[in-house]
Amino acid sequence: MEKKTMKAIVKDKRAPGATLKEVPIPEIGDQEVLIQVKATSICGTDVHIYAWDEWSQSRVNPPYVFGHEFSGIVVKKGKYVNNVEVGDHVSAETHIVCGHCPQCLTGQAHICANTQIIGVDRDGCFAEYVALPAENMWKNDPELPFDVASVQEPFGNGVHTVLAGDVAGKSVAIIGCGPIGIMAVGIAKAAGASQVIAFDLNEYRLDLAKKMGATTVVNASKENPLEVAKKLTNGHGVDVVCEMSGHPVAMNQGFKMVTNGGRVSILSLPVKPVEIDVTNDIVFKGITVQGITGRRMYETWQQVSGLLGSGQVDVKPIITHHFPLEEFEKGFDLMLQGKCGKVVLHP
Amino acid sequence: MEKKTMKAIVKDKRAPGATLKEVPIPEIGDQEVLIQVKATSICGTDVHIYAWDEWSQSRVNPPYVFGHEFSGIVVKKGKYVNNVEVGDHVSAETHIVCGHCPQCLTGQAHICANTQIIGVDRDGCFAEYVALPAENMWKNDPELPFDVASVQEPFGNGVHTVLAGDVAGKSVAIIGCGPIGIMAVGIAKAAGASQVIAFDLNEYRLDLAKKMGATTVVNASKENPLEVAKKLTNGHGVDVVCEMSGHPVAMNQGFKMVTNGGRVSILSLPVKPVEIDVTNDIVFKGITVQGITGRRMYETWQQVSGLLGSGQVDVKPIITHHFPLEEFEKGFDLMLQGKCGKVVLHP
Amino acid sequence: MEKKTMKAIVKDKRAPGATLKEVPIPEIGDQEVLIQVKATSICGTDVHIYAWDEWSQSRVNPPYVFGHEFSGIVVKKGKYVNNVEVGDHVSAETHIVCGHCPQCLTGQAHICANTQIIGVDRDGCFAEYVALPAENMWKNDPELPFDVASVQEPFGNGVHTVLAGDVAGKSVAIIGCGPIGIMAVGIAKAAGASQVIAFDLNEYRLDLAKKMGATTVVNASKENPLEVAKKLTNGHGVDVVCEMSGHPVAMNQGFKMVTNGGRVSILSLPVKPVEIDVTNDIVFKGITVQGITGRRMYETWQQVSGLLGSGQVDVKPIITHHFPLEEFEKGFDLMLQGKCGKVVLHP
Amino acid sequence: MEKKTMKAIVKDKRAPGATLKEVPIPEIGDQEVLIQVKATSICGTDVHIYAWDEWSQSRVNPPYVFGHEFSGIVVKKGKYVNNVEVGDHVSAETHIVCGHCPQCLTGQAHICANTQIIGVDRDGCFAEYVALPAENMWKNDPELPFDVASVQEPFGNGVHTVLAGDVAGKSVAIIGCGPIGIMAVGIAKAAGASQVIAFDLNEYRLDLAKKMGATTVVNASKENPLEVAKKLTNGHGVDVVCEMSGHPVAMNQGFKMVTNGGRVSILSLPVKPVEIDVTNDIVFKGITVQGITGRRMYETWQQVSGLLGSGQVDVKPIITHHFPLEEFEKGFDLMLQGKCGKVVLHP
Repeated sequence: MEKKTMKAIVKDKRAPGATLKEVPIPEIGDQEVLIQVKATSICGTDVHIYAWDEWSQSRVNPPYVFGHEFSGIVVKKGKYVNNVEVGDHVSAETHIVCGHCPQCLTGQAHICANTQIIGVDRDGCFAEYVALPAENMWKNDPELPFDVASVQEPFGNGVHTVLAGDVAGKSVAIIGCGPIGIMAVGIAKAAGASQVIAFDLNEYRLDLAKKMGATTVVNASKENPLEVAKKLTNGHGVDVVCEMSGHPVAMNQGFKMVTNGGRVSILSLPVKPVEIDVTNDIVFKGITVQGITGRRMYETWQQVSGLLGSGQVDVKPIITHHFPLEEFEKGFDLMLQGKCGKVVLHP
Repeated sequence: MEKKTMKAIVKDKRAPGATLKEVPIPEIGDQEVLIQVKATSICGTDVHIYAWDEWSQSRVNPPYVFGHEFSGIVVKKGKYVNNVEVGDHVSAETHIVCGHCPQCLTGQAHICANTQIIGVDRDGCFAEYVALPAENMWKNDPELPFDVASVQEPFGNGVHTVLAGDVAGKSVAIIGCGPIGIMAVGIAKAAGASQVIAFDLNEYRLDLAKKMGATTVVNASKENPLEVAKKLTNGHGVDVVCEMSGHPVAMNQGFKMVTNGGRVSILSLPVKPVEIDVTNDIVFKGITVQGITGRRMYETWQQVSGLLGSGQVDVKPIITHHFPLEEFEKGFDLMLQGKCGKVVLHP
Repeated sequence: MEKKTMKAIVKDKRAPGATLKEVPIPEIGDQEVLIQVKATSICGTDVHIYAWDEWSQSRVNPPYVFGHEFSGIVVKKGKYVNNVEVGDHVSAETHIVCGHCPQCLTGQAHICANTQIIGVDRDGCFAEYVALPAENMWKNDPELPFDVASVQEPFGNGVHTVLAGDVAGKSVAIIGCGPIGIMAVGIAKAAGASQVIAFDLNEYRLDLAKKMGATTVVNASKENPLEVAKKLTNGHGVDVVCEMSGHPVAMNQGFKMVTNGGRVSILSLPVKPVEIDVTNDIVFKGITVQGITGRRMYETWQQVSGLLGSGQVDVKPIITHHFPLEEFEKGFDLMLQGKCGKVVLHP
Repeated sequence: MEKKTMKAIVKDKRAPGATLKEVPIPEIGDQEVLIQVKATSICGTDVHIYAWDEWSQSRVNPPYVFGHEFSGIVVKKGKYVNNVEVGDHVSAETHIVCGHCPQCLTGQAHICANTQIIGVDRDGCFAEYVALPAENMWKNDPELPFDVASVQEPFGNGVHTVLAGDVAGKSVAIIGCGPIGIMAVGIAKAAGASQVIAFDLNEYRLDLAKKMGATTVVNASKENPLEVAKKLTNGHGVDVVCEMSGHPVAMNQGFKMVTNGGRVSILSLPVKPVEIDVTNDIVFKGITVQGITGRRMYETWQQVSGLLGSGQVDVKPIITHHFPLEEFEKGFDLMLQGKCGKVVLHP
């Protein structure tokens, strides 16, 4: 007899925490697929929802299944689906976009103003199965391990940030070494950066950054980031800054350490407006500042597959913890403490 | 007998004002040229120096000849000069750069950290003659009128800002209609913008913006800029914002009126740090912010010559006033009152 | 009683010509729309099919309805269609793409290797109604006249070619003044080109080029194109060449007249391989050669709407002939003789 | 007593070969420097001159000192030189450009139409000393070994070719594994290419390509290049082709193996015009073809320093032979036989 229900981590109350429950396996529409989840990783966003912070209180509607990073196998497809087959290994782009706004129509779907997010605005992948629009599927090489395939989504954020401009032969600063920051270190190194300078306050994560190829790691509580950056670049400043800390002081250090004409790509989300010395740090320096959201659909995924599949970047050192789905609370605890790289759950 | 002295407007005291004096005609070095000035226009920077504001008190060293926008004829050249000949009509790039820093060596000389500015850091062109490095010369078509040729430098700022990305078929907002803003209107229109929306508080200058081809002019004291921009773009926002006001409120309106994925190019120099909603206005929108300084050397000048020489942009409506050099005070008064476009002085 | 059949121009035999017939109004699928055609224009491709040349003999399968340039009104939509509504004015992108190849997934759908073309690989729009995939719809401003809206598709080819790089302030050569070449003249002019030099052998079309804003028109049978180009650019060569002739001699003239570092964008389709002096004309000159196919989906359409809707380009002078659908043969005759700009048929 | 003469390899007759001679140490002008040559490497161009082929017969004027790749130390400078000091380690950009043509003025000096080439149009560096314009100096890190520093010039050709577009996460074909081709392999790998497929007929050089990181090497006399490329890319074709063979068949294979929308960057110099299927291989595929000459001045040099200084590329395996200047004939013999990577001479 066919299985009708599945295990899922349900955000079931407007309060901190979540509950493992048995829920119905989702139905799919004509343009959707059903995927059996093989690995699913915890994102900072999931931690916000778990911890029930201000942002999640205003955004999500319990009860629902959360989680959005995963890899799995297609087990059913709707009648109009022709881009994947049952049996395909897949991951998913998390942004479900409208397809007809000016952004969607001009290659900028990742900033569609009508975006819905998997695991935020609809049921996600912390479960045995997930139903999703076929057009959000990204086919994985069956040889790519499921845990590596699961972290492609945040890895894509790193790729989108680092490769939003040239890095080969250039100096790159990664400000903020959360999991995406650490991935960004490996990406910059693989893409030919002459220097990759990683900044954080957390020694555990600076160690990971070192493992991923940082040429210098800087604990900003012990050394002056601006002085280090200046010294390492003969006083000229770094060519590229990837801002992943969200901290206003660190962000402004980024603006000050970038060389004239350099690039500051911001993936982080400061919680309040930031005071910026526009005249001296942006205009006179002639720099370019880029806001980075999501992953380009699907240029970024293509680059991700290329970098991971070829071994140019090995993310294994970043995947520090594995748990069965049932032990999700252990994973969230580690994330809250910052004592981990990526945590992968296995349904 | 050869003329040994010349008339010049000298910033002679650390106090407001300037004085017309007879001073020696400058000597030239082996790599320099001497130019007879035929027309010279007043820049906002000159007004700061004239008015002796905080910035000029900290930067310039009277006594010296100020002024940097001009056109003229080469009358003498040093022995190593081979890019211009005596008799050539010329204007000059205002930035004298070092030639050997990373920026100078990689096509970004306009943001050389060792830049010296004509009429700020060394004697300028509010005079009958000016001596300048040969490599700063831009050869003018002898058919280009001297007054038009004189305003190429600020026109170049407009070109650099507007053409720092695509505009053909796109909607462009010009925030701030000082002389460069008004020029930017004409440039955006000439480069194929589908809409050019000009914002200011000064009706005189909004009228000039209209004359230069603005499809909509908005007096921000009478209409809500964000509502107008939204309405004119079916709620999507404008594709490109050229920020030329320097006002923090207007700048933030620029960030809010730009569409997702759009471009904000900032030429203005706010006097204090500006609070910016980085998360909502830059990151989630995935926009690009560019600091714009000077003119690309010499891509911008090439574009300037192309746009002015072909008649694609007619700057005559912007050149609202002409005076002999001796009556420079009339010109500065008009500038201080904002009751003019460009003011040209004729030595 | 609902209408069941419609008039259509049917390519009904593997022989020159076509026949006006009464055929069933097409059915639509869940992801398709039915459009009432209000205007449809004749493309060079249609003329090939009509004349039954070698290419069409190898490509199309009569009997079927041909034609692919049109504008019309949506009269029915499938259940999964949410980007257009009944009553919307629309045109269509002619390329029906697979959506899942590397090109489709990375913003290059216009060169999808699995492309099907409307009016070539499936029934087209020389008819009262046409059924098409919803995702190929481009919504028109209801105020855009139907004939202008119909020529957006070839106008898009012109836009794609001209705006494949910068043109503001630059010199542009348009080699070949068929309808798209003439449109390209207007586009280059609207986008701020300092010179637009149009080359052809056909005086009728050179006249149209002049009307669209060419700064110089050159009859290549009377003047030496290379000498003219050289003279007009002080010996340096033109900045941009848009090759739209398909003729090997003209194409090579394009390579020779472009300046070092310039751009040659090729939209034409030479019938045989072309001998090119790669060393002298491509490598030593450091130029960029671009193959141009179709229209970027949908960046080009956005630009088209911007340029036509704003009046930056007025294509009315190019639409030289109008006929009722029944008189299609008159239109094809004119096209075969080259004595027309665009010919529009009205069903 | 000061040394007045030096050893130099002189192309002294209009015939094959060259002669080691004692010649005067060159004088320098006010804008020049004198460099003591520490290492100088043999380029294919030098081999042409040595062998006295058709091209060199038409271009060079014996007697003169040839050679243009080198590293050395500044021993004297003219009075207007301020970018280097006596004692600086330097190499030189080989192109001496005019500085005032449209290309020089717009960041494209590497394709200046008035270029003079060191060791071709004026005395070169196969000598103990060489006199050069100061503005052609590139300062080397004193820790960079002289032999590595000497090959920066051809390495720059490789960098210019490979990095003329994105390669991170992409598949790259290197067609032709001469010394620059082999360097290009290492550059593509260092810049994050997912695959680097090297093609040649010479097993010795394919072995070097393998050592530099080629993921696949293909002997085109044993395997069908198109089939290999297709198979390695799931039938889609490679993203980037770097054409370095100059052979018309290989070049056309490059056009055929590139994916739709891909990039073909041509550094090679075919001796005759090449027949290209423009319609099918360029236009329908929507590819970009780039002619590559020299090195961008000095963006490429900056990238070269970044890639070599950081160890991202190790060129040591490519520098296969070292000889004292006196034994130059051994080096030329090896080059003629293709049994070497780079050959370095030590004065």
